Amino acid sequence: MIERISILGMGLLGTSAGLALRAAGFGGQIIGWNRSPGQARFAFNKGAISEIADDPIEAARESQVILLSMPIYATLDYMAQLSNVLTPDHLVTDVGSTKRLIAESAAQIYNAHGRPAFLPGHPMAGKERGGASLGDANLFRGAVWLFTDDPAARRSQYSGDLILRWRQWVTAMGARIIDIDPVRHDELVAWVSHLPQFVATALSALLEEEVGDAPELKDVGGRALREMTRLGASPYSMWRDIAHTNTEPIERAIQSLELRLAHLRENLRTPALRSEFDDANRFRRE
Amino acid sequence: MIERISILGMGLLGTSAGLALRAAGFGGQIIGWNRSPGQARFAFNKGAISEIADDPIEAARESQVILLSMPIYATLDYMAQLSNVLTPDHLVTDVGSTKRLIAESAAQIYNAHGRPAFLPGHPMAGKERGGASLGDANLFRGAVWLFTDDPAARRSQYSGDLILRWRQWVTAMGARIIDIDPVRHDELVAWVSHLPQFVATALSALLEEEVGDAPELKDVGGRALREMTRLGASPYSMWRDIAHTNTEPIERAIQSLELRLAHLRENLRTPALRSEFDDANRFRRE
Repeated sequence: MIERISILGMGLLGTSAGLALRAAGFGGQIIGWNRSPGQARFAFNKGAISEIADDPIEAARESQVILLSMPIYATLDYMAQLSNVLTPDHLVTDVGSTKRLIAESAAQIYNAHGRPAFLPGHPMAGKERGGASLGDANLFRGAVWLFTDDPAARRSQYSGDLILRWRQWVTAMGARIIDIDPVRHDELVAWVSHLPQFVATALSALLEEEVGDAPELKDVGGRALREMTRLGASPYSMWRDIAHTNTEPIERAIQSLELRLAHLRENLRTPALRSEFDDANRFRRE
Repeated sequence: MIERISILGMGLLGTSAGLALRAAGFGGQIIGWNRSPGQARFAFNKGAISEIADDPIEAARESQVILLSMPIYATLDYMAQLSNVLTPDHLVTDVGSTKRLIAESAAQIYNAHGRPAFLPGHPMAGKERGGASLGDANLFRGAVWLFTDDPAARRSQYSGDLILRWRQWVTAMGARIIDIDPVRHDELVAWVSHLPQFVATALSALLEEEVGDAPELKDVGGRALREMTRLGASPYSMWRDIAHTNTEPIERAIQSLELRLAHLRENLRTPALRSEFDDANRFRRE
Protein backbone atom coordinates (compact mmCIF):
# COMPACT_ATOMS: atom_id res chain seq x y z
CA MET A 1 0.00 0.00 0.00
CA ILE A 2 1.15 3.55 -0.76
CA GLU A 3 1.30 5.52 2.48
CA ARG A 4 3.47 8.52 1.60
CA ILE A 5 3.46 10.48 -1.64
CA SER A 6 5.61 13.52 -2.37
CA ILE A 7 4.44 16.01 -4.97
CA LEU A 8 7.31 18.17 -6.16
CA GLY A 9 5.88 21.23 -7.90
CA MET A 10 2.60 22.65 -6.60
CA GLY A 11 1.32 24.25 -9.80
CA LEU A 12 -2.01 23.43 -11.39
CA LEU A 13 -1.27 19.74 -12.01
CA GLY A 14 0.50 19.01 -8.73
CA THR A 15 -2.17 20.72 -6.66
CA SER A 16 -4.94 19.05 -8.64
CA ALA A 17 -3.29 15.64 -8.15
CA GLY A 18 -3.24 16.16 -4.37
CA LEU A 19 -6.88 17.22 -4.34
CA ALA A 20 -7.90 14.36 -6.66
CA LEU A 21 -6.06 11.78 -4.54
CA ARG A 22 -7.92 13.01 -1.46
CA ALA A 23 -11.24 13.01 -3.31
CA ALA A 24 -10.54 9.43 -4.44
CA GLY A 25 -10.02 8.38 -0.84
CA PHE A 26 -6.25 8.39 -0.47
CA GLY A 27 -5.71 8.47 3.29
CA GLY A 28 -1.92 8.58 3.54
CA GLN A 29 0.50 11.47 3.79
CA ILE A 30 0.88 13.87 0.88
CA ILE A 31 3.99 16.00 1.17
CA GLY A 32 4.17 19.03 -1.08
CA TRP A 33 7.11 21.12 -2.16
CA ASN A 34 7.38 24.09 -4.45
CA ARG A 35 10.33 26.28 -5.41
CA SER A 36 8.40 29.38 -4.35
CA PRO A 37 6.80 28.51 -1.00
CA GLY A 38 3.66 30.62 -1.54
CA GLN A 39 2.20 28.06 -3.96
CA ALA A 40 2.83 25.22 -1.50
CA ARG A 41 1.10 27.23 1.24
CA PHE A 42 -1.83 27.78 -1.12
CA ALA A 43 -2.03 24.06 -1.90
CA PHE A 44 -1.85 23.22 1.80
CA ASN A 45 -4.68 25.62 2.61
CA LYS A 46 -6.82 24.04 -0.12
CA GLY A 47 -6.23 20.60 1.41
CA ALA A 48 -4.17 19.27 -1.51
CA ILE A 49 -1.25 18.32 0.75
CA SER A 50 -0.94 17.37 4.40
CA GLU A 51 2.57 18.72 4.89
CA ILE A 52 4.87 21.30 3.32
CA ALA A 53 8.45 20.18 2.72
CA ASP A 54 11.46 22.48 2.96
CA ASP A 55 13.75 20.10 1.11
CA PRO A 56 12.45 18.24 -1.95
CA ILE A 57 15.20 15.59 -1.82
CA GLU A 58 14.47 14.81 1.80
CA ALA A 59 10.73 14.67 1.08
CA ALA A 60 11.35 12.25 -1.79
CA ARG A 61 13.57 10.04 0.36
CA GLU A 62 10.80 9.71 2.93
CA SER A 63 8.10 8.83 0.35
CA GLN A 64 7.24 5.72 -1.62
CA VAL A 65 5.90 7.58 -4.65
CA ILE A 66 7.32 10.88 -5.89
CA LEU A 67 5.27 12.84 -8.44
CA LEU A 68 7.31 15.40 -10.38
CA SER A 69 4.92 18.07 -11.62
CA MET A 70 7.11 20.75 -13.14
CA PRO A 71 8.28 21.81 -16.62
CA ILE A 72 10.29 19.27 -18.67
CA TYR A 73 13.82 20.54 -18.04
CA ALA A 74 13.18 20.86 -14.32
CA THR A 75 11.80 17.30 -14.38
CA LEU A 76 15.00 16.09 -16.07
CA ASP A 77 17.11 17.91 -13.44
CA TYR A 78 15.21 16.36 -10.53
CA MET A 79 15.30 12.94 -12.17
CA ALA A 80 19.10 13.15 -12.17
CA GLN A 81 19.33 14.40 -8.58
CA LEU A 82 16.85 11.86 -7.23
CA SER A 83 18.38 8.87 -9.03
CA ASN A 84 21.47 9.27 -6.84
CA VAL A 85 19.68 9.28 -3.52
CA LEU A 86 16.68 6.97 -3.99
CA THR A 87 16.58 3.18 -3.86
CA PRO A 88 14.59 0.38 -5.56
CA ASP A 89 11.77 0.84 -3.07
CA HIS A 90 10.98 4.28 -4.53
CA LEU A 91 8.81 5.03 -7.54
CA VAL A 92 9.26 8.36 -9.30
CA THR A 93 6.68 9.43 -11.88
CA ASP A 94 5.94 12.66 -13.70
CA VAL A 95 3.38 14.68 -15.65
CA GLY A 96 5.62 16.16 -18.37
CA SER A 97 4.11 17.00 -21.77
CA THR A 98 6.86 15.38 -23.85
CA LYS A 99 8.16 11.91 -23.09
CA ARG A 100 11.06 10.95 -25.37
CA LEU A 101 13.82 12.66 -23.38
CA ILE A 102 12.28 11.68 -20.05
CA ALA A 103 11.94 8.04 -21.11
CA GLU A 104 15.56 8.06 -22.33
CA SER A 105 16.71 9.45 -19.01
CA ALA A 106 14.61 6.87 -17.14
CA ALA A 107 16.23 4.07 -19.14
CA GLN A 108 19.69 5.40 -18.34
CA ILE A 109 19.50 6.19 -14.65
CA TYR A 110 16.39 4.35 -13.35
CA ASN A 111 14.67 1.03 -13.88
CA ALA A 112 17.70 -1.26 -13.73
CA HIS A 113 18.88 -3.60 -11.03
CA GLY A 114 19.51 -1.66 -7.82
CA ARG A 115 18.07 1.57 -9.18
CA PRO A 116 14.86 3.37 -8.22
CA ALA A 117 11.85 2.96 -10.53
CA PHE A 118 10.59 5.63 -12.91
CA LEU A 119 7.22 5.60 -14.68
CA PRO A 120 6.89 8.34 -17.33
CA GLY A 121 3.36 9.79 -17.27
CA HIS A 122 1.36 12.52 -18.96
CA PRO A 123 -2.17 13.46 -17.91
CA MET A 124 -3.94 15.17 -20.83
CA ALA A 125 -5.54 17.80 -18.66
CA GLY A 126 -4.78 21.40 -17.97
CA LYS A 127 -6.03 24.92 -18.15
CA GLU A 128 -4.78 27.87 -20.11
CA ARG A 129 -3.50 29.39 -16.88
CA GLY A 130 -1.53 27.62 -14.18
CA GLY A 131 -0.99 27.90 -10.45
CA ALA A 132 -2.12 26.20 -7.25
CA SER A 133 -5.11 28.55 -6.95
CA LEU A 134 -6.72 26.87 -10.00
CA GLY A 135 -6.14 23.37 -8.59
CA ASP A 136 -9.21 21.20 -9.12
CA ALA A 137 -10.05 17.75 -7.72
CA ASN A 138 -11.96 16.98 -10.95
CA LEU A 139 -9.25 18.07 -13.38
CA PHE A 140 -8.44 14.49 -14.43
CA ARG A 141 -12.02 13.23 -14.53
CA GLY A 142 -12.70 11.87 -18.02
CA ALA A 143 -9.18 12.77 -19.20
CA VAL A 144 -6.65 10.40 -20.70
CA TRP A 145 -3.48 9.76 -18.63
CA LEU A 146 -0.73 8.47 -20.87
CA PHE A 147 2.11 6.24 -19.66
CA THR A 148 5.18 5.46 -21.75
CA ASP A 149 6.70 2.80 -19.55
CA ASP A 150 9.38 0.48 -20.91
CA PRO A 151 8.03 -3.08 -20.60
CA ALA A 152 11.62 -4.39 -20.67
CA ALA A 153 12.64 -2.44 -17.56
CA ARG A 154 14.03 -4.73 -14.86
CA ARG A 155 12.48 -3.89 -11.55
CA SER A 156 12.22 -5.10 -8.02
CA GLN A 157 9.01 -6.78 -6.91
CA TYR A 158 8.50 -3.81 -4.64
CA SER A 159 8.57 -1.12 -7.31
CA GLY A 160 6.45 -3.31 -9.60
CA ASP A 161 3.78 -3.23 -6.89
CA LEU A 162 4.11 0.55 -6.52
CA ILE A 163 3.59 1.00 -10.27
CA LEU A 164 0.45 -1.12 -10.15
CA ARG A 165 -0.90 0.84 -7.21
CA TRP A 166 -0.09 4.25 -8.70
CA ARG A 167 -1.94 3.22 -11.87
CA GLN A 168 -4.91 2.29 -9.69
CA TRP A 169 -4.84 5.73 -8.05
CA VAL A 170 -4.71 7.41 -11.47
CA THR A 171 -7.83 5.48 -12.45
CA ALA A 172 -9.42 6.37 -9.12
CA MET A 173 -8.77 10.06 -9.88
CA GLY A 174 -11.11 9.58 -12.85
CA ALA A 175 -8.53 9.32 -15.66
CA ARG A 176 -8.38 6.70 -18.40
CA ILE A 177 -4.93 5.15 -18.86
CA ILE A 178 -3.47 4.61 -22.32
CA ASP A 179 -0.01 3.01 -22.66
CA ILE A 180 2.03 4.16 -25.61
CA ASP A 181 5.61 4.15 -26.87
CA PRO A 182 7.42 7.41 -25.93
CA VAL A 183 8.44 8.34 -29.49
CA ARG A 184 4.92 7.65 -30.77
CA HIS A 185 3.63 9.68 -27.78
CA ASP A 186 5.62 12.74 -28.82
CA GLU A 187 4.48 12.46 -32.43
CA LEU A 188 0.85 12.02 -31.40
CA VAL A 189 0.77 14.95 -28.96
CA ALA A 190 2.47 17.14 -31.59
CA TRP A 191 -0.75 16.68 -33.62
CA VAL A 192 -3.50 16.66 -31.01
CA SER A 193 -2.06 18.93 -28.32
CA HIS A 194 0.95 20.97 -29.42
CA LEU A 195 -0.40 21.95 -32.85
CA PRO A 196 -3.71 23.26 -31.41
CA GLN A 197 -1.70 25.28 -28.86
CA PHE A 198 0.66 26.86 -31.38
CA VAL A 199 -2.25 27.61 -33.73
CA ALA A 200 -4.07 29.38 -30.92
CA THR A 201 -0.90 31.30 -30.07
CA ALA A 202 -0.29 32.36 -33.68
CA LEU A 203 -3.95 33.29 -34.21
CA SER A 204 -4.09 35.29 -30.97
CA ALA A 205 -0.81 37.08 -31.71
CA LEU A 206 -1.99 37.93 -35.24
CA LEU A 207 -5.35 39.23 -34.01
CA GLU A 208 -3.63 41.28 -31.30
CA GLU A 209 -1.79 43.03 -34.13
CA GLU A 210 -4.93 43.44 -36.28
CA VAL A 211 -7.69 44.33 -33.82
CA GLY A 212 -5.96 44.43 -30.41
CA ASP A 213 -6.30 48.20 -30.13
CA ALA A 214 -10.10 48.06 -30.44
CA PRO A 215 -11.43 45.92 -27.59
CA GLU A 216 -15.06 46.31 -28.74
CA LEU A 217 -14.12 44.58 -32.00
CA LYS A 218 -12.90 41.48 -30.13
CA ASP A 219 -16.45 41.10 -28.81
CA VAL A 220 -17.68 40.86 -32.39
CA GLY A 221 -16.07 37.43 -32.70
CA GLY A 222 -18.26 36.05 -29.93
CA ARG A 223 -17.97 32.54 -28.54
CA ALA A 224 -16.19 31.09 -31.57
CA LEU A 225 -13.34 33.61 -31.33
CA ARG A 226 -13.08 33.22 -27.56
CA GLU A 227 -12.73 29.46 -27.91
CA MET A 228 -10.26 29.58 -30.76
CA THR A 229 -7.99 31.95 -28.80
CA ARG A 230 -8.48 30.72 -25.22
CA LEU A 231 -5.16 28.86 -25.34
CA GLY A 232 -3.55 32.14 -26.39
CA ALA A 233 -3.32 32.83 -22.65
CA SER A 234 -0.99 29.85 -22.12
CA PRO A 235 2.38 30.81 -20.65
CA TYR A 236 5.63 30.76 -22.62
CA SER A 237 7.40 29.39 -19.53
CA MET A 238 5.63 26.08 -19.93
CA TRP A 239 5.61 25.83 -23.71
CA ARG A 240 9.27 26.72 -24.21
CA ASP A 241 10.33 23.34 -22.80
CA ILE A 242 7.80 21.55 -25.00
CA ALA A 243 8.99 23.42 -28.12
CA HIS A 244 12.60 22.56 -27.24
CA THR A 245 12.05 18.88 -26.50
CA ASN A 246 9.64 18.02 -29.34
CA THR A 247 10.84 20.36 -32.06
CA GLU A 248 10.81 18.15 -35.16
CA PRO A 249 7.34 16.62 -34.67
CA ILE A 250 5.92 20.09 -33.94
CA GLU A 251 7.64 21.54 -37.02
CA ARG A 252 6.10 18.83 -39.19
CA ALA A 253 2.62 19.40 -37.74
CA ILE A 254 2.75 23.20 -38.13
CA GLN A 255 4.08 22.97 -41.67
CA SER A 256 1.31 20.55 -42.62
CA LEU A 257 -1.26 23.04 -41.36
CA GLU A 258 0.39 25.88 -43.29
CA LEU A 259 0.02 23.81 -46.47
CA ARG A 260 -3.57 22.91 -45.65
CA LEU A 261 -4.46 26.57 -45.04
CA ALA A 262 -2.83 27.56 -48.34
CA HIS A 263 -4.82 24.86 -50.12
CA LEU A 264 -8.05 26.08 -48.54
CA ARG A 265 -7.20 29.71 -49.35
CA GLU A 266 -6.54 28.86 -53.00
CA ASN A 267 -9.88 27.05 -53.21
CA LEU A 268 -12.26 29.48 -51.50
CA ARG A 269 -14.25 29.65 -54.74
CA THR A 270 -13.80 26.11 -56.06
CA PRO A 271 -15.59 22.82 -55.22
CA ALA A 272 -12.43 21.69 -53.38
CA LEU A 273 -13.64 23.81 -50.45
CA ARG A 274 -16.50 21.36 -50.01
CA SER A 275 -14.15 18.42 -49.49
CA GLU A 276 -12.22 20.36 -46.83
CA PHE A 277 -15.51 20.91 -44.98
CA ASP A 278 -16.44 17.24 -45.52
CA ASP A 279 -13.12 16.06 -44.02
CA ALA A 280 -13.50 18.48 -41.10
CA ASN A 281 -17.11 17.39 -40.50
CA ARG A 282 -15.92 13.77 -40.48
CA PHE A 283 -13.40 14.56 -37.72
CA ARG A 284 -16.24 15.99 -35.64
CA ARG A 285 -18.80 13.28 -36.38
CA GLU A 286 -20.41 12.10 -33.14
CA MET B 1 -45.54 49.94 -33.12
CA ILE B 2 -44.52 46.75 -34.88
CA GLU B 3 -47.47 44.36 -34.92
CA ARG B 4 -46.53 41.84 -37.63
CA ILE B 5 -43.11 40.38 -38.32
CA SER B 6 -42.31 37.80 -40.99
CA ILE B 7 -39.28 35.60 -40.54
CA LEU B 8 -38.24 34.04 -43.84
CA GLY B 9 -35.93 31.09 -43.12
CA MET B 10 -36.55 29.07 -39.96
CA GLY B 11 -33.03 27.81 -39.34
CA LEU B 12 -31.09 28.39 -36.15
CA LEU B 13 -31.06 32.19 -36.39
CA GLY B 14 -34.64 32.65 -37.61
CA THR B 15 -36.07 30.31 -34.99
CA SER B 16 -33.93 31.89 -32.26
CA ALA B 17 -35.09 35.36 -33.29
CA GLY B 18 -38.73 34.30 -32.96
CA LEU B 19 -38.11 32.77 -29.54
CA ALA B 20 -36.06 35.78 -28.40
CA LEU B 21 -38.73 38.24 -29.54
CA ARG B 22 -41.33 36.35 -27.55
CA ALA B 23 -39.05 36.16 -24.51
CA ALA B 24 -38.49 39.92 -24.78
CA GLY B 25 -42.25 40.50 -24.68
CA PHE B 26 -43.14 40.95 -28.33
CA GLY B 27 -46.88 40.40 -28.39
CA GLY B 28 -47.66 40.77 -32.11
CA GLN B 29 -47.89 38.22 -34.91
CA ILE B 30 -44.77 36.35 -36.01
CA ILE B 31 -45.24 34.65 -39.36
CA GLY B 32 -42.66 32.04 -40.27
CA TRP B 33 -41.76 30.54 -43.59
CA ASN B 34 -39.16 28.00 -44.60
CA ARG B 35 -38.37 26.39 -47.96
CA SER B 36 -38.73 22.94 -46.40
CA PRO B 37 -41.92 23.07 -44.31
CA GLY B 38 -40.65 20.66 -41.62
CA GLN B 39 -38.39 23.33 -40.09
CA ALA B 40 -41.26 25.84 -39.97
CA ARG B 41 -43.45 23.25 -38.25
CA PHE B 42 -40.66 22.64 -35.74
CA ALA B 43 -40.33 26.39 -35.07
CA PHE B 44 -44.09 26.69 -34.67
CA ASN B 45 -44.19 23.82 -32.17
CA LYS B 46 -41.40 25.49 -30.16
CA GLY B 47 -43.43 28.71 -30.02
CA ALA B 48 -41.02 30.73 -32.18
CA ILE B 49 -43.78 31.72 -34.63
CA SER B 50 -47.52 32.16 -34.32
CA GLU B 51 -48.33 31.25 -37.91
CA ILE B 52 -46.79 29.25 -40.77
CA ALA B 53 -46.87 30.93 -44.18
CA ASP B 54 -47.22 29.05 -47.45
CA ASP B 55 -46.04 31.94 -49.56
CA PRO B 56 -43.07 34.04 -48.37
CA ILE B 57 -43.94 37.00 -50.62
CA GLU B 58 -47.50 37.13 -49.36
CA ALA B 59 -46.27 36.87 -45.76
CA ALA B 60 -43.85 39.75 -46.33
CA ARG B 61 -46.55 41.91 -47.89
CA GLU B 62 -48.73 41.48 -44.82
CA SER B 63 -45.94 42.35 -42.37
CA GLN B 64 -44.26 45.56 -41.29
CA VAL B 65 -40.88 44.00 -40.63
CA ILE B 66 -39.44 41.14 -42.69
CA LEU B 67 -36.39 39.33 -41.29
CA LEU B 68 -34.45 37.38 -43.92
CA SER B 69 -32.55 34.61 -42.15
CA MET B 70 -31.01 32.50 -44.89
CA PRO B 71 -27.64 32.14 -46.63
CA ILE B 72 -26.22 35.19 -48.45
CA TYR B 73 -27.18 34.33 -52.03
CA ALA B 74 -30.70 33.39 -50.99
CA THR B 75 -30.90 36.70 -49.11
CA LEU B 76 -29.86 38.57 -52.27
CA ASP B 77 -32.50 36.69 -54.28
CA TYR B 78 -35.29 37.51 -51.83
CA MET B 79 -34.13 41.13 -51.59
CA ALA B 80 -34.65 41.43 -55.35
CA GLN B 81 -38.05 39.72 -55.32
CA LEU B 82 -39.35 41.67 -52.35
CA SER B 83 -38.17 45.06 -53.59
CA ASN B 84 -40.71 44.78 -56.41
CA VAL B 85 -43.73 44.05 -54.25
CA LEU B 86 -43.13 45.97 -51.02
CA THR B 87 -43.72 49.65 -50.32
CA PRO B 88 -42.11 52.37 -48.14
CA ASP B 89 -44.10 51.18 -45.14
CA HIS B 90 -42.13 47.91 -45.07
CA LEU B 91 -38.76 47.33 -43.43
CA VAL B 92 -36.69 44.38 -44.62
CA THR B 93 -33.64 43.37 -42.57
CA ASP B 94 -31.34 40.35 -42.57
CA VAL B 95 -28.80 38.32 -40.60
CA GLY B 96 -26.26 37.57 -43.35
CA SER B 97 -22.60 37.04 -42.42
CA THR B 98 -21.16 39.31 -45.12
CA LYS B 99 -22.53 42.76 -45.76
CA ARG B 100 -20.82 44.43 -48.74
CA LEU B 101 -22.97 42.84 -51.47
CA ILE B 102 -26.13 43.10 -49.40
CA ALA B 103 -25.51 46.78 -48.63
CA GLU B 104 -24.83 47.44 -52.33
CA SER B 105 -28.07 45.73 -53.26
CA ALA B 106 -29.93 47.69 -50.58
CA ALA B 107 -28.55 50.96 -51.97
CA GLN B 108 -29.66 50.02 -55.48
CA ILE B 109 -33.16 48.67 -54.96
CA TYR B 110 -34.22 49.87 -51.47
CA ASN B 111 -33.88 52.96 -49.33
CA ALA B 112 -34.73 55.58 -51.91
CA HIS B 113 -37.85 57.65 -52.39
CA GLY B 114 -40.86 55.40 -52.92
CA ARG B 115 -38.90 52.21 -52.18
CA PRO B 116 -39.17 49.86 -49.19
CA ALA B 117 -36.53 50.20 -46.46
CA PHE B 118 -33.68 47.75 -45.94
CA LEU B 119 -31.45 47.59 -42.84
CA PRO B 120 -28.46 45.24 -43.28
CA GLY B 121 -27.85 43.34 -40.03
CA HIS B 122 -25.55 40.65 -38.71
CA PRO B 123 -25.96 39.07 -35.26
CA MET B 124 -22.61 37.61 -34.14
CA ALA B 125 -24.19 34.48 -32.72
CA GLY B 126 -24.53 30.95 -33.93
CA LYS B 127 -23.70 27.37 -33.26
CA GLU B 128 -21.56 24.92 -35.18
CA ARG B 129 -24.72 23.13 -36.28
CA GLY B 130 -27.87 24.75 -37.61
CA GLY B 131 -31.57 24.00 -37.72
CA ALA B 132 -34.77 25.04 -35.97
CA SER B 133 -34.34 22.31 -33.38
CA LEU B 134 -31.34 24.17 -31.89
CA GLY B 135 -33.25 27.48 -31.75
CA ASP B 136 -32.58 29.25 -28.47
CA ALA B 137 -34.28 32.31 -26.94
CA ASN B 138 -30.94 33.28 -25.35
CA LEU B 139 -28.78 32.95 -28.47
CA PHE B 140 -28.34 36.72 -28.84
CA ARG B 141 -27.89 37.48 -25.14
CA GLY B 142 -24.54 39.23 -24.70
CA ALA B 143 -23.78 38.99 -28.43
CA VAL B 144 -22.98 41.88 -30.74
CA TRP B 145 -25.53 42.65 -33.49
CA LEU B 146 -23.90 44.61 -36.26
CA PHE B 147 -25.76 47.01 -38.54
CA THR B 148 -24.25 48.49 -41.70
CA ASP B 149 -26.96 50.97 -42.51
CA ASP B 150 -26.31 53.81 -44.92
CA PRO B 151 -26.88 57.07 -43.02
CA ALA B 152 -27.50 58.84 -46.35
CA ALA B 153 -30.44 56.61 -47.27
CA ARG B 154 -33.56 58.65 -47.95
CA ARG B 155 -36.48 57.14 -46.15
CA SER B 156 -40.07 57.81 -45.26
CA GLN B 157 -40.89 58.86 -41.72
CA TYR B 158 -42.68 55.53 -41.41
CA SER B 159 -39.74 53.29 -42.24
CA GLY B 160 -37.45 55.47 -40.09
CA ASP B 161 -39.73 54.64 -37.16
CA LEU B 162 -39.66 50.92 -38.02
CA ILE B 163 -35.85 50.94 -38.03
CA LEU B 164 -35.79 52.60 -34.62
CA ARG B 165 -38.24 50.06 -33.23
CA TRP B 166 -36.47 47.07 -34.75
CA ARG B 167 -33.21 48.26 -33.15
CA GLN B 168 -35.04 48.45 -29.84
CA TRP B 169 -36.22 44.85 -30.24
CA VAL B 170 -32.68 43.72 -31.05
CA THR B 171 -31.52 45.33 -27.83
CA ALA B 172 -34.45 43.77 -25.98
CA MET B 173 -33.33 40.33 -27.27
CA GLY B 174 -30.13 40.93 -25.27
CA ALA B 175 -27.78 41.94 -28.09
CA ARG B 176 -25.44 44.94 -28.19
CA ILE B 177 -25.69 46.98 -31.38
CA ILE B 178 -22.57 48.23 -33.16
CA ASP B 179 -22.94 50.32 -36.33
CA ILE B 180 -20.19 49.89 -38.88
CA ASP B 181 -19.47 50.58 -42.54
CA PRO B 182 -20.23 47.49 -44.71
CA VAL B 183 -16.76 47.24 -46.29
CA ARG B 184 -15.11 47.64 -42.89
CA HIS B 185 -17.58 45.03 -41.58
CA ASP B 186 -16.46 42.46 -44.10
CA GLU B 187 -12.77 43.10 -43.38
CA LEU B 188 -13.34 42.89 -39.64
CA VAL B 189 -15.34 39.66 -39.70
CA ALA B 190 -12.72 38.13 -42.02
CA TRP B 191 -10.33 38.44 -39.05
CA VAL B 192 -12.50 37.72 -36.04
CA SER B 193 -15.05 35.29 -37.46
CA HIS B 194 -14.14 33.84 -40.87
CA LEU B 195 -10.45 33.22 -40.11
CA PRO B 196 -11.22 31.28 -36.89
CA GLN B 197 -13.74 29.19 -38.86
CA PHE B 198 -11.39 28.35 -41.71
CA VAL B 199 -8.58 27.57 -39.27
CA ALA B 200 -10.84 25.16 -37.40
CA THR B 201 -11.87 23.58 -40.71
CA ALA B 202 -8.27 23.17 -41.91
CA LEU B 203 -7.11 21.86 -38.51
CA SER B 204 -9.99 19.38 -38.29
CA ALA B 205 -9.50 18.18 -41.87
CA LEU B 206 -5.76 17.72 -41.27
CA LEU B 207 -6.31 15.81 -38.02
CA GLU B 208 -8.94 13.63 -39.68
CA GLU B 209 -6.18 12.60 -42.09
CA GLU B 210 -3.58 12.10 -39.34
CA VAL B 211 -5.50 10.49 -36.46
CA GLY B 212 -9.06 10.10 -37.76
CA ASP B 213 -8.79 6.32 -37.96
CA ALA B 214 -7.97 6.01 -34.25
CA PRO B 215 -10.85 7.48 -32.23
CA GLU B 216 -9.14 6.79 -28.91
CA LEU B 217 -6.31 9.12 -29.97
CA LYS B 218 -8.73 12.01 -30.45
CA ASP B 219 -9.58 11.72 -26.76
CA VAL B 220 -5.93 12.34 -25.95
CA GLY B 221 -6.30 15.95 -27.05
CA GLY B 222 -8.91 16.61 -24.37
CA ARG B 223 -10.79 19.88 -23.97
CA ALA B 224 -8.24 21.99 -25.86
CA LEU B 225 -8.55 19.87 -29.00
CA ARG B 226 -12.35 19.72 -28.74
CA GLU B 227 -12.54 23.50 -28.54
CA MET B 228 -10.08 24.14 -31.35
CA THR B 229 -12.02 21.81 -33.69
CA ARG B 230 -15.63 22.43 -32.59
CA LEU B 231 -16.23 24.70 -35.57
CA GLY B 232 -14.98 21.85 -37.79
CA ALA B 233 -18.60 20.64 -37.67
CA SER B 234 -19.85 23.79 -39.44
CA PRO B 235 -21.65 23.09 -42.70
CA TYR B 236 -20.19 23.85 -46.13
CA SER B 237 -23.64 24.97 -47.28
CA MET B 238 -23.45 28.05 -45.08
CA TRP B 239 -19.75 28.86 -45.48
CA ARG B 240 -19.68 28.56 -49.26
CA ASP B 241 -21.65 31.79 -49.62
CA ILE B 242 -19.36 33.53 -47.13
CA ALA B 243 -16.24 32.34 -48.97
CA HIS B 244 -17.71 33.52 -52.27
CA THR B 245 -18.85 36.95 -51.08
CA ASN B 246 -15.84 37.91 -48.93
CA THR B 247 -13.04 36.15 -50.80
CA GLU B 248 -10.29 38.80 -50.81
CA PRO B 249 -10.45 39.77 -47.10
CA ILE B 250 -10.52 36.06 -46.16
CA GLU B 251 -7.55 35.33 -48.44
CA ARG B 252 -5.55 38.11 -46.79
CA ALA B 253 -6.42 36.86 -43.29
CA ILE B 254 -5.56 33.22 -44.03
CA GLN B 255 -2.29 34.15 -45.73
CA SER B 256 -1.29 36.31 -42.76
CA LEU B 257 -1.84 33.34 -40.48
CA GLU B 258 0.20 31.06 -42.74
CA LEU B 259 3.10 33.52 -42.46
CA ARG B 260 2.68 33.81 -38.71
CA LEU B 261 2.70 30.01 -38.32
CA ALA B 262 5.83 29.76 -40.47
CA HIS B 263 7.52 32.40 -38.32
CA LEU B 264 6.58 30.55 -35.15
CA ARG B 265 7.73 27.23 -36.63
CA GLU B 266 11.10 28.69 -37.58
CA ASN B 267 11.53 30.06 -34.07
CA LEU B 268 10.53 27.12 -31.89
CA ARG B 269 14.00 27.18 -30.35
CA THR B 270 14.77 30.91 -30.43
CA PRO B 271 13.77 33.76 -28.08
CA ALA B 272 11.34 35.02 -30.78
CA LEU B 273 8.94 32.33 -29.55
CA ARG B 274 8.59 34.29 -26.33
CA SER B 275 7.35 37.40 -28.13
CA GLU B 276 4.73 35.34 -29.98
CA PHE B 277 3.44 34.09 -26.62
CA ASP B 278 3.62 37.64 -25.21
CA ASP B 279 1.52 39.01 -28.09
CA ALA B 280 -0.96 36.14 -27.73
CA ASN B 281 -1.16 36.64 -23.96
CA ARG B 282 -1.85 40.33 -24.59
CA PHE B 283 -4.81 39.48 -26.84
CA ARG B 284 -6.25 37.39 -24.00
CA ARG B 285 -5.53 39.82 -21.17
CA GLU B 286 -8.64 40.26 -19.05
